[in-house]
Amino acid sequence: MTSMTETPGRRTLSEILSQPRSWRECLNALDRQIPAVREKFQSSAEALFVGCGSSFYVAQAAESCWTHLTGQKARAAPASELLLYPELLAPKPNACRPVLISRSGATSEILKAAEWLEVERNIRTLAISCSTRPPLGQIASQSLTLTPADEQSMVMTRSFTSMLLGLELLAASVAENHAYRDSLQRLADQTEPLVEGIRAGVESFVAAHEFEDYVFLGQGPFFGIASEAMLKVKEMSCSYSQCFHTLEFRHGPKAIVSPKVLVTFFLSETGAEAEREVLEEVKGLGGVTMVVANRPERAVRRSADHLVALDLDVPEFARPAAAVIAAQLLGFYTGLKKGYDPDRPPNLSRVVVLNNSRPVGNLKEKS
Amino acid sequence: MTSMTETPGRRTLSEILSQPRSWRECLNALDRQIPAVREKFQSSAEALFVGCGSSFYVAQAAESCWTHLTGQKARAAPASELLLYPELLAPKPNACRPVLISRSGATSEILKAAEWLEVERNIRTLAISCSTRPPLGQIASQSLTLTPADEQSMVMTRSFTSMLLGLELLAASVAENHAYRDSLQRLADQTEPLVEGIRAGVESFVAAHEFEDYVFLGQGPFFGIASEAMLKVKEMSCSYSQCFHTLEFRHGPKAIVSPKVLVTFFLSETGAEAEREVLEEVKGLGGVTMVVANRPERAVRRSADHLVALDLDVPEFARPAAAVIAAQLLGFYTGLKKGYDPDRPPNLSRVVVLNNSRPVGNLKEKS
Repeated sequence: MTSMTETPGRRTLSEILSQPRSWRECLNALDRQIPAVREKFQSSAEALFVGCGSSFYVAQAAESCWTHLTGQKARAAPASELLLYPELLAPKPNACRPVLISRSGATSEILKAAEWLEVERNIRTLAISCSTRPPLGQIASQSLTLTPADEQSMVMTRSFTSMLLGLELLAASVAENHAYRDSLQRLADQTEPLVEGIRAGVESFVAAHEFEDYVFLGQGPFFGIASEAMLKVKEMSCSYSQCFHTLEFRHGPKAIVSPKVLVTFFLSETGAEAEREVLEEVKGLGGVTMVVANRPERAVRRSADHLVALDLDVPEFARPAAAVIAAQLLGFYTGLKKGYDPDRPPNLSRVVVLNNSRPVGNLKEKS
Repeated sequence: MTSMTETPGRRTLSEILSQPRSWRECLNALDRQIPAVREKFQSSAEALFVGCGSSFYVAQAAESCWTHLTGQKARAAPASELLLYPELLAPKPNACRPVLISRSGATSEILKAAEWLEVERNIRTLAISCSTRPPLGQIASQSLTLTPADEQSMVMTRSFTSMLLGLELLAASVAENHAYRDSLQRLADQTEPLVEGIRAGVESFVAAHEFEDYVFLGQGPFFGIASEAMLKVKEMSCSYSQCFHTLEFRHGPKAIVSPKVLVTFFLSETGAEAEREVLEEVKGLGGVTMVVANRPERAVRRSADHLVALDLDVPEFARPAAAVIAAQLLGFYTGLKKGYDPDRPPNLSRVVVLNNSRPVGNLKEKS
């Protein structure tokens, strides 16, 4: 599968490590694009973030950040729910501001969702993508384009974090919270010198352990990060991986804890005390733990088999993009160890295009 | 662990098989209780369904059924999100109707959520539980109590389906859709003669196969069912099990498909064509499939290694409760085969009570 002259995963690794630079370039590119779109979001309409796969997890994280920053309601949905059960999301003109998220801007389900909203429901949409001239841009009324974040490899890494930061920047702009733009710039500057240490730490940890199953836990803005971490490990290493809200793990899922299971905690500060209880319970049940936290207290350090301490001087809701890097690297090195090429995961394609061009659910096909 | 006179899983199996009878008894009990509470839900306020574990998955399924039946917006959330990040769900008096779901009415997180809503936010709540005199009933303003659905065993089976039907009945009552009550009664009558066939079929299927991992897929009202199926298999058999929106499975998760993975589809009719494409793709990738559908067409039958055809003469949104029975039995027989007692799963307790009584997140403790 791998050509003789190419190291497996070369492109993916370089894209993971390039994230802080990508964030900086995207923030600059967005400064020029955001003024034209922010007005549309200054009503009390609910923001509806829609995506597939990693882009759906961008939507989940953006939902939290949006409500936190703007005080407006927000909702994340996979594009398939909007296509198959549009009545359940009940998007009404003027009561709903859909944001369609797609790295390529070419995923069939997103194109169909955009067309249904714009043409059938007469609802104006905003597209966010990393591709120049994406097909989505021709359907959506407005676009944000993050070309510096586009990737050569199959799995989304810097496009995930960059589109999330892009939506945070939009939320901050809508809320006229100018200090938040500076904190996103600071996030890029402060994460850059950390990346090599996170990489080396995860590489050693993966080399020293064998796991059969991976669990990722997070609350609030970190739940979307736990979801994306689950997908990265699955895509790059074909491992069984799952995600839950941290406190939900006690309500049944903890049945699978064993020394063969790695449980990764994305710890918040808001929920620190309750989340630490779950961490200590997992240790008590014989689980192995990885902890990603900002400034973990001693009790957390004691319960972490591998600790990633970020020590970032930015608000909690600006940190999720930095927290996911360790999980991207976990998927990457686990994949390499299992003999896969993370640049070319089995079963996957870069853009999911439906074979079938007939109408989906209630959606009429464009003629 | 098991006493000499007791067959492992005896109580759980009997509770699984008793579901149609439990539904009938609960519908009758609710006919007397619902008139007193339906008025509170006849505003345009958003319904907020809150639970932990299986009760959170009741909330997910109820969210879809509620919007379908009433046309009102609804949202499901784990109690932990309401406790740790209350601002993200932004419940405002008169704009939010919280429904707190708990079999025992004694789960710490639900009690704290109820108290925060009622006392701190001055928002009236409705509790739904299966226990007589649950502690939750003293905090919530109103209650629905489904005592016929209560269980002796640890995992929730008939309490899950009965509380879901209870919330569907409330939605139908709010919508003044009287025909829907009859369809729920029909669901009980028509499911009763199917249960033994479903049981025998799943028992044979489990005896004949070995799986390392379980995936459950559903859209719309079946997504909450896929989530609950994931939890049942995990709780009763300590297996790795996951759930996704059916079409989301193509966006990365399909990387893990192999003959060692059982992929279970809860097929809808609304999304039949798009969902069948995913089913056929999983078969093409070498996966083993179980399909739960109402009246599956030939192409579906061809792609199903094990088929549960319900053939129920009730609306699609009334069928999810019947669809989950096969997955409860899958968890049950897989657990028995792996040497566990499904009445007493490892690591779990019947009611999750936090060790720590200090405040969680922004929540003040009741004095």
